[in-house]
Amino acid sequence: MKKILLQLDCDPLASVFDAVTAYDAGADVVLQYGNVTTENVVDLVYGVMFTRGGDKLKYSAIFIGGSNVSRASEILDVVKKTFFGNVRNSVMFDPSGCNTTAAAAVAKMTKACDVKGQKVVVLAGTGPVGQRAAAMFAMEGAKVVVTSRKFEKAQAAAEEIKATFGLEVQPFAAFDDESTTEALKGAVAALCTGAPGVTLIREPLWKANPSLKVLGDVNAVPPMGVEGMKSSYNGEVIEGKVMLGSMGIGGLKMRVHRTCIERLFERNDALFDAQSILEIAKELS
Amino acid sequence: MKKILLQLDCDPLASVFDAVTAYDAGADVVLQYGNVTTENVVDLVYGVMFTRGGDKLKYSAIFIGGSNVSRASEILDVVKKTFFGNVRNSVMFDPSGCNTTAAAAVAKMTKACDVKGQKVVVLAGTGPVGQRAAAMFAMEGAKVVVTSRKFEKAQAAAEEIKATFGLEVQPFAAFDDESTTEALKGAVAALCTGAPGVTLIREPLWKANPSLKVLGDVNAVPPMGVEGMKSSYNGEVIEGKVMLGSMGIGGLKMRVHRTCIERLFERNDALFDAQSILEIAKELS
Amino acid sequence: MKKILLQLDCDPLASVFDAVTAYDAGADVVLQYGNVTTENVVDLVYGVMFTRGGDKLKYSAIFIGGSNVSRASEILDVVKKTFFGNVRNSVMFDPSGCNTTAAAAVAKMTKACDVKGQKVVVLAGTGPVGQRAAAMFAMEGAKVVVTSRKFEKAQAAAEEIKATFGLEVQPFAAFDDESTTEALKGAVAALCTGAPGVTLIREPLWKANPSLKVLGDVNAVPPMGVEGMKSSYNGEVIEGKVMLGSMGIGGLKMRVHRTCIERLFERNDALFDAQSILEIAKELS
Repeated sequence: MKKILLQLDCDPLASVFDAVTAYDAGADVVLQYGNVTTENVVDLVYGVMFTRGGDKLKYSAIFIGGSNVSRASEILDVVKKTFFGNVRNSVMFDPSGCNTTAAAAVAKMTKACDVKGQKVVVLAGTGPVGQRAAAMFAMEGAKVVVTSRKFEKAQAAAEEIKATFGLEVQPFAAFDDESTTEALKGAVAALCTGAPGVTLIREPLWKANPSLKVLGDVNAVPPMGVEGMKSSYNGEVIEGKVMLGSMGIGGLKMRVHRTCIERLFERNDALFDAQSILEIAKELS
Repeated sequence: MKKILLQLDCDPLASVFDAVTAYDAGADVVLQYGNVTTENVVDLVYGVMFTRGGDKLKYSAIFIGGSNVSRASEILDVVKKTFFGNVRNSVMFDPSGCNTTAAAAVAKMTKACDVKGQKVVVLAGTGPVGQRAAAMFAMEGAKVVVTSRKFEKAQAAAEEIKATFGLEVQPFAAFDDESTTEALKGAVAALCTGAPGVTLIREPLWKANPSLKVLGDVNAVPPMGVEGMKSSYNGEVIEGKVMLGSMGIGGLKMRVHRTCIERLFERNDALFDAQSILEIAKELS
Repeated sequence: MKKILLQLDCDPLASVFDAVTAYDAGADVVLQYGNVTTENVVDLVYGVMFTRGGDKLKYSAIFIGGSNVSRASEILDVVKKTFFGNVRNSVMFDPSGCNTTAAAAVAKMTKACDVKGQKVVVLAGTGPVGQRAAAMFAMEGAKVVVTSRKFEKAQAAAEEIKATFGLEVQPFAAFDDESTTEALKGAVAALCTGAPGVTLIREPLWKANPSLKVLGDVNAVPPMGVEGMKSSYNGEVIEGKVMLGSMGIGGLKMRVHRTCIERLFERNDALFDAQSILEIAKELS
């Protein structure tokens, strides 16, 4: 029986990236749907719920992607409510690659340095990847600080993390060398999740920080969020700090993505969202 | 050579249900098209007519689905006119599952009870499934009564059945216990094809009817069209009547759907519409 | 690893013809995208550039089709600019089948008659197939004349050919027997690429022309562009002239199309456009 993945995407054109990755992970067929809304998604989901019964339900699974994470979250809510009893399919939630990217970064960084009970800073952590990375560090027992140039934005992100994951993180305004130095004070790990091409930590700052053990950066476009970072860094130690660039993180991200897709088809009730994707990333890292 | 099914759907997003079912029936590739219109369908059909010549034409086939049966009918008309000579592909017509659902119900009911020359009632038979079930009972030689709460609606349905299938059925207004009792008087079979959750025959009525031998109900959402019916009934005999609920009918419907898809690829000039789908349902029931 | 073809089409519904042909040429998966624009195409292309690294990039390729050749050309330009270094995928450009049709006609005609240094006329050569055929004849060293009923249109086509391919062709107004006779004077080959059902060369004209050795016609709908031509002619000699009708040309066109698709997956940096498609047509003819 063919493994069919239903790709739900709120963008007008469903992601090519997600489709190719699904095929590479062993899906036999990807049914691509763009323009998915909370209204039209129900019939799409019925189409996988009601075509293959009993223990064959697991051969149909759902991937929720797209560039807009909050709309994708609404889709996920509707999908969950559409299922009933054992009439359900496994689901992976990864719009904008937010979960797989965050999980790969957090898994690599926590492997390089035990964060339990320690301070971890997610710089410019207000977007989808940043929020999820912050939540995942908190799941690992870290005391997480989320920064933004404006305190209000950091606070809003902290509230969203609280609402989505039930986890506490501390908002902090880091807008210049002084405030960034303050943000990083005593931290063992710092991850930059800002916009491409924006430097968040100048080189002298992280080199002068004695507590920092690992630095990560998901930015692929120079200049890097961590000045002195290279995309290709994958655990190199610079001035005593383990360095993880976007390609170093990206390799694991791809393996995490593919592994999640593979495992979707092992049962009919899996949900791969932040926590479970982090578990897989830790297992693979 | 891959078996390619061209899925034509007038809805904005082509049905997942129909695509999954097609793959399960052995199609290698389903080309899904939503937003199909009588204007844009011609080029789509050319795409299967002119790519594989001669005896390989049969490896491309067409499925016409979608939620709007009348628009789908217009598509079917254009598809038929686009073909010429032996340059044609096999076609299955099943928007809203109307043909496969009706055929499964009629095949099961006529197997349980010979309807030739007998009175059969299709209650709330004005929609796509009801009209097609009524026509199929008439094809089997029954004297068919189609009811609606309003006589005008029943009459309009009878006229549409006449126009589409060239078959006569009798319209009847059944809106309360008395008129429903009158409608069922002398009937050997009654099928409910009404809206989900609307009771059409109260329990005392069918139990008190001496001629009724089989009762069918395509409604999956309680309360049932036939009070006392269970979705799971698949030939159980209650008070001397054979009972067929939506799941009992649905199992055959799925097999009919898959079998039609399989057979599309055996020749290049098959047309699976009401009559031929009923034949397959009878063969499989 | 599955061979994935990304089908980019500016029309609202991506071509069925191109998808079926791609599957028949050995593509394992065709990701069909309609409504492609110069804006949304970049993310689509990233989806094949960044999913399979290194020597596996060749398992993803791009087909640019659709009915509008000039919009497709803009898409091609953006696709080329999106690639960088060796991070690229092979591309085939064939909107409206313009390259494969022109290449098949030119390959068959130049095989029937050496055109190097000779006069060749493309009648009604202002559309996509005509312009490309004219350019291809010029690539083969012919002195090419492109006709239209109005000189301005022929001139505009000549300028477009110059701009696109850097090749010189001569515009000429052929609107009646006299001007058509003049256009064909001394020519060894004439190809009609006009609208379906429009006669461009009346029978007495080509029969009376002593220099003409081969006549081609891509028109499939009678009356033919070359009066007396049959669609099925595939090299028949009539009054000393080799005759090539639309089906004769079409058979090679299909083989060229499929061969290009096959070869897309042999490397990650092929570009199949006019010149390279002509080379393949000559190889296969």
